[in-house]
Formats: sequence, structure tokens, C-alpha cells
Amino acid sequence: MSPTAYYVGLDVGGTSMKASVVDETGNAARSVSLPTEAFKGQELGLARMAEVIRRAIASAGRQQRDIAGIGVATPGTMDIPAGVILDPPNLRPWQNVPVRHYIQETFGIPTTFQNDANAAALGEFWVGAGREVRSLVMFTLGTGIGGGIILFDRVVEGKHSHGAEIGHMKIEMTNPRQCGCGRWGCLEAYASATAVVKRAREALAADKVSSRLQEVVSQTDAELTARAVFETAAAGDALAAKLVDETAYYLAVGAMNMMHIIDPEMVVFGGGMIAAGETFLNRIRGYVRQMAFPVLAEHTQIRYAQLGSDAGFIGAAACARLLVNGKL
Amino acid sequence: MSPTAYYVGLDVGGTSMKASVVDETGNAARSVSLPTEAFKGQELGLARMAEVIRRAIASAGRQQRDIAGIGVATPGTMDIPAGVILDPPNLRPWQNVPVRHYIQETFGIPTTFQNDANAAALGEFWVGAGREVRSLVMFTLGTGIGGGIILFDRVVEGKHSHGAEIGHMKIEMTNPRQCGCGRWGCLEAYASATAVVKRAREALAADKVSSRLQEVVSQTDAELTARAVFETAAAGDALAAKLVDETAYYLAVGAMNMMHIIDPEMVVFGGGMIAAGETFLNRIRGYVRQMAFPVLAEHTQIRYAQLGSDAGFIGAAACARLLVNGKL
Repeated sequence: MSPTAYYVGLDVGGTSMKASVVDETGNAARSVSLPTEAFKGQELGLARMAEVIRRAIASAGRQQRDIAGIGVATPGTMDIPAGVILDPPNLRPWQNVPVRHYIQETFGIPTTFQNDANAAALGEFWVGAGREVRSLVMFTLGTGIGGGIILFDRVVEGKHSHGAEIGHMKIEMTNPRQCGCGRWGCLEAYASATAVVKRAREALAADKVSSRLQEVVSQTDAELTARAVFETAAAGDALAAKLVDETAYYLAVGAMNMMHIIDPEMVVFGGGMIAAGETFLNRIRGYVRQMAFPVLAEHTQIRYAQLGSDAGFIGAAACARLLVNGKL
Repeated sequence: MSPTAYYVGLDVGGTSMKASVVDETGNAARSVSLPTEAFKGQELGLARMAEVIRRAIASAGRQQRDIAGIGVATPGTMDIPAGVILDPPNLRPWQNVPVRHYIQETFGIPTTFQNDANAAALGEFWVGAGREVRSLVMFTLGTGIGGGIILFDRVVEGKHSHGAEIGHMKIEMTNPRQCGCGRWGCLEAYASATAVVKRAREALAADKVSSRLQEVVSQTDAELTARAVFETAAAGDALAAKLVDETAYYLAVGAMNMMHIIDPEMVVFGGGMIAAGETFLNRIRGYVRQMAFPVLAEHTQIRYAQLGSDAGFIGAAACARLLVNGKL
């Protein structure tokens, strides 16, 4: 492999799409971004993907002929081997969008396609929190809970492109919360940012104890966020602290289950919620130590992600690199 | 690969150890068995492993020089890469037994070592229920619940030899049953044969409804077994039927979780409990269809294992084959 091989990673999100040129060692040039505006339709969406790729190449001072491969990551339901977005909730009204074929034909460059949470996990594995381990499971904590599993230097895509939907492992049977997906008792229904807010509202409605969260709710006109819950807990509020502690417990259940199922070298937490900081991570670690098999409790590394919102396009580039190297 | 390559698979259990010569296509010669008698100590145990391997080779009409590789599978805690049994509950008082080294030195033949449930999964993948799929998750239903995961043609051993301890995924937080492992809410605490019996006893103690299970208990001097519960249910007893139905539900939760996490092409159930037959499997399938993501509910195959108690030594031989072919 030439030391001067370059890849383009493109991460298409509900709000914006970001692309960057990434070299063989995982160094990413400054990324270029355009609004996704899915509502304008998928033809425009595909054209815009091509445009942001072109701009990323130009911005990095490269030319198309320098690019060995392109990787595209998107959210939502998909057929990964076919390279098609099927019916993504975050990209309405797109349906059956032949992303990989379009990009590959447009540029004449080998192109690969991946789920965005899987790509983020591969990015962290390549040059992020997991760069020194051989296997990892990543939880992406946001509105929902996404995930990615890297084993044997590969992404666990699953037979039906549903690999690592780890937010939808069922962790409660007796008194399950309903998840955004419609199912009952999913991890996501307990520990996503959405779930934190929902649990906070329930606690405020039920609890007679006064909490600064009530002020938050009244001040910001019901704009209660997970971040506000974490900040209020950090400021010493007992109810908020309880909500944060329970969230750490739920995430520890998720982490422990993945440790008992996959036994990865590292569990990585990424996404907006890791703004909660090291204290929160240590609570998760504490519960894992209490609950997991002793060997795993002692040895499995539990870390925060390091690449932030760059993980998606870096991981997409990593997918392109695997493709070009014949390892996909 | 020569069509005449032969491997020896050895499956060491708590009661007996079984070995067989297996050819390149997965055909196994009639197996040879000796009692394990772990209580006699690990030196005798190792010598007996060598003896049963010798007898298996002789019984198959082969000679040592015909054998390309040996695979040994054992239960309990282990260090798979080191080839060492650590502290196996079913093989007391063995501790830190260097199985792979001993067998390899004794025969001068490349030897590999694996967890028995992992080996069984690889056996089913090679020539059993999963012989036409590319990935599978297997649940082994017995006194406990073991498991094996086959992905990318490899066994998911885990970083700390704890891969596929899927009986110990936590599926209940509010009102968890205690598991034999000491933890709370593990799948095994709900759906193992031991758990079925425990739940039956609780139901008999709590329920005012008369059940033929009461006769079973009185007739057999409290020798209530999971098999008796399934048979009593098949004979039309309502309480036993409820216990069986709940067991199917718990196993469906486990299967669904693995489908959402790994998204394998097939989920396989093996072990003694599959004597319950096709009706029980269809109940599991029914609950999976109700609970899993639609694409997975529709497409993921859910089957019973086909190799019975031969899966362990066939899978151990499959491990040896991977070793010899440089794929471990």
C-alpha cells in the first residue's frame, strides 16, 4: 500500500452531510459540510453528496485521480451489500436510494457504503479510542442509541444489515418502557437522551421532592434536555443526580451484556451524551464492575469515543480503505 | 487440501469424554467414549484424553500419521489462546490444566483448544443445522444455557475467552431471578432446564389450580425435571403448558436480542431441551415474530441443532481443520 493513498469519507446526517479526505494513516483533512435538506428529494440529495465529495477533494488540495476509494455512511434502514438506503426516518422522503452505485458511477472510483453508527465504530477502531485494541463495541448515545461492533478487523453488518442495533436489546420484561421503535424494554427506551428527558418528566410529575429541574422546565418553557439533567445533577440536585445514576446503570447493563456476548477488548461510548464527562463514565464503570463476570469486569476497557462527530466520515474512509485493500 | 485429510475431535464433558476421527467433509467415524472421572485428578484426566484419542484413531482404522490435526473442547473457565482449562465447575478439582500443550506434545500433531459450546456451534455451522448459512448464533439449552457465535467463518471466542456467554445476558431489571452464576436477571435464570424446574416448583407452591405436575412431584419423590414439565404440558396440563409457553417467550427474548445485536443468518437451539420438539420451536418462532424487527422476524432462520451430542467433537475437529488450514 502506497503511503500516499487517499480516501474520501462522507457522512450523511439528517441535518448536514460532511466529507473529508483521509490519508492512509487516518489523518483527515478539514471537513467540508453542506446541508442535507432531505425534504428537497433524493435526486438533489445524491447530487449534493457528489458536490460535497468534490469540495472535500478540492479543499484538501487533491485531485480525483489521487483518491483510491470513497466511503459513504448514512443513517436509517438500508441494504448495505446493495449500497442502498431503504426508508430512513431521518431522511424523509428518501426511499430506495442507490447511493453506492450513484457515487461510484459519478466518480469512477471504488465506493463502499455503510451504516453511520457502524462507520463511527470503525473510525474509533482505526484512529480513535480503540486504535490499540483488536475488537470493540461502540454505543452511540444520542436521540436514540446506535451501535457498532468491530470483530476480526471487520464491521459486523449482519445478514440483513441490522448488525449492532444494540439500542434494541431488550433488558426488561416485567415493567418495560416503550421504545421509539415501538417495541418494549429496549435499552434505548432507558438510556438515550430522549429517554433521560422522558424519565425526568415522569419523576417531576410523580415526585413531591423539590428539584432544580422544575426551574429548568419553567425557565426554558419545557425545553428540558438530557444535557440540562446532567448539568443540574452536577450542580448538586438530588433528583437529577438520581436520574443520571440510573442512566449509568442502564448503560452498564448494556455494556455488560455486550461483554458477555461478544467479550470485546473495549467498550466505547460516543455521541452527545458523553459531554456528561468522566464522572458519568466512572459511574458506568462502577456498575459494570459490580455486575459483569469478574475477569471481564477487571480487564475490559470502557472508554469515551475520541473522534467526536468526525468518527462517521473517518470511519467511512476506513471502509473505503478496507474495500481497496480487498478486506471487505 | 487433500481429500484424505483427517482430524480428531475430542469433547470432554463432566461425565464422559468422547472422541472421533472426522474427515475433510465432516463425516465422523463412530465415536469412542471413556468416563471423565475428574475427581481422580487432572494428570489422569490428561492421560485419559490421550487414551481416548488413541482409541478413536484405532477404532476408525487409521494411524496417527493420518491425522492432520487434533481439536479438544472442554467446558468451564478457560484461557482459549493458551489452551488451558482454568477452574472448571464441572471438572473439579482440575485447575490450570495445560490441555493443548499436553496433547500436542504427546502426539506431535497440531492441536487446538476450544470451549465446548463454541465447538458445538462450529460443528452445527460446518455440517449441522447451519451448514448452508454464513453466520449463526447457537443456544445450548441444558442445566445452564451455553452459546456459540460463528461470524466470518470464525468462532467468536472473545478477548478474555468469554465470547458467547449468552446465557448471561441480563433480560430483567425490575424483578430479576437469581442465576446459578450469582448474578441477577440472566437469561439462564429463566430458560435453562434448571430454571424450568425452579419455576415449576414456585408455581406449584403458589398456585391453587390443580395440576398433574403435583402428581409428578409426588410419584417421583420430588424428581421434577424440565422433561417432565414439557411432557405434562403435552398431555394437556394447563399449568405445565403455561410454564412451557413462558420458557418459549424467554428464549425468544434471547434470540431476538442476538438478532438485534449480531443479525446472524440463523439462530440454532441445541441441548437436551430440544427434545420438547417442533411445537416448542414454533412457539419460540411465534414470539420472535411478534417482537423482532420486521425484516429479521421474517428472514432469520430459527432451527434446532442436528448433530445432538456429536456436535462437540465434530466442532472440535472443525477447529483443528481451521488450524491446519491457517484460518484460526
